[in-house]
Amino acid sequence: MRNVKLTIQYDGTDYQGWQIQAGGPTIQGEITKIISMLDQRPVTVHGAGRTDSGVHAEGQVANCSLERDFPLTEFRDAINGNLPRDIRVNDAEFVEDRFHARIWAKQKTYRYQIYTGPVVSPFLYRYVHHVRAPLATDEMREAASRLLGCHDFSAFAGGGGDVSNFVRTLNRLDIDVEPDRILITASANGFLRYMVRTIVGTLIDVGRQRRSAESLSEVLDSRDRGQAGLTAPAAGLTLVRVDY
Amino acid sequence: MRNVKLTIQYDGTDYQGWQIQAGGPTIQGEITKIISMLDQRPVTVHGAGRTDSGVHAEGQVANCSLERDFPLTEFRDAINGNLPRDIRVNDAEFVEDRFHARIWAKQKTYRYQIYTGPVVSPFLYRYVHHVRAPLATDEMREAASRLLGCHDFSAFAGGGGDVSNFVRTLNRLDIDVEPDRILITASANGFLRYMVRTIVGTLIDVGRQRRSAESLSEVLDSRDRGQAGLTAPAAGLTLVRVDY
Repeated sequence: MRNVKLTIQYDGTDYQGWQIQAGGPTIQGEITKIISMLDQRPVTVHGAGRTDSGVHAEGQVANCSLERDFPLTEFRDAINGNLPRDIRVNDAEFVEDRFHARIWAKQKTYRYQIYTGPVVSPFLYRYVHHVRAPLATDEMREAASRLLGCHDFSAFAGGGGDVSNFVRTLNRLDIDVEPDRILITASANGFLRYMVRTIVGTLIDVGRQRRSAESLSEVLDSRDRGQAGLTAPAAGLTLVRVDY
Repeated sequence: MRNVKLTIQYDGTDYQGWQIQAGGPTIQGEITKIISMLDQRPVTVHGAGRTDSGVHAEGQVANCSLERDFPLTEFRDAINGNLPRDIRVNDAEFVEDRFHARIWAKQKTYRYQIYTGPVVSPFLYRYVHHVRAPLATDEMREAASRLLGCHDFSAFAGGGGDVSNFVRTLNRLDIDVEPDRILITASANGFLRYMVRTIVGTLIDVGRQRRSAESLSEVLDSRDRGQAGLTAPAAGLTLVRVDY
């Protein structure tokens, strides 16, 4: 048995998220089906993060154990030849047996794209959240700075799941302003469900001057999801990379 | 009646091309339906160029006459609010009555994207033609230079249509090399059906050293479509702009 690490990209628009579930196609499901076919037995594919329905990835990481001995470039090409074109394995490499894509992950980085121009391009709409109101980005930056560090992020966590520890360390929460676009980049040792999208929804409230930058500290301290803003739409979110 | 000029973008993947026809949705059909609804009468929308099935546009131009008096920003937003998200009107402006998007067009510019890396990104596959073989781009440039100027382009014209004059002036045929990508940009006073894609298919033959750069002059002189290469796939092609 060889343990293989996969780096994966996908346009999540047409999928029910990463994790295999009833009710629609999933990224994990598509990849598992093909690798199991190639290895001629049921293979378990472990992903670094469970991206939600409609969320994209430029650098999702997964691993699986293989019985058969594939040359890795051929293995990658065989997977891609069978996958839908909106999912692609960019890289496959042998790793030590103990490597586990989720457990070994030290940091994940997500990017959220807000489009602020009048007309969303047909080439962008799958990847952005359209906000037509002007956003006060300096205020958003000030608000973001209040979330950095090690905190209980219960106020920004969606329901469901089996999580009992809501403490995460947010290492980066950058707001970059481009023409007609605002990019929010978040890095942490781990993210709770809907955490990035709820932070973004709350920062948009600040940008629209519906709440103050200072109030973010209160929201955080409340540990009450009802104090934060709306969960921003999935389309704007992309898992950029996973660090080990 | 006011004559309005529209600048239009679309991802052509899911359309049977610009021109209204039986058998599937078209860009012209979608736009005509909505403008006719807004103007409360059947409106004719004239496009600058009939992009084929699967071809995209960043700067298609069209015009139509309106009976009702719309503020143009509201008119644009009303059209976009009713269009599928893979078609967008970027700009609407009043123009003189005689303006006709097709007849007045002085030059059109198309871009063709070839992806040469090993794995086509899920975010790119709709817009590129994947060629895994290495391409000799210097040879392709030399071949391209032989097509510049005013010629009878019969050898590069697809069948069908009602064209009797095959003479066009090709002002620009650039080959730009980027990492894992080759961009071919073509500007002419007009293009015959499949002309850009047939030129690209023939240039790919040159890049793969299946024919010489010099042979392009013979192909052109032959006026015989059988002498040129395959028609490259529609997905790689985008109508970039129309100049008046």
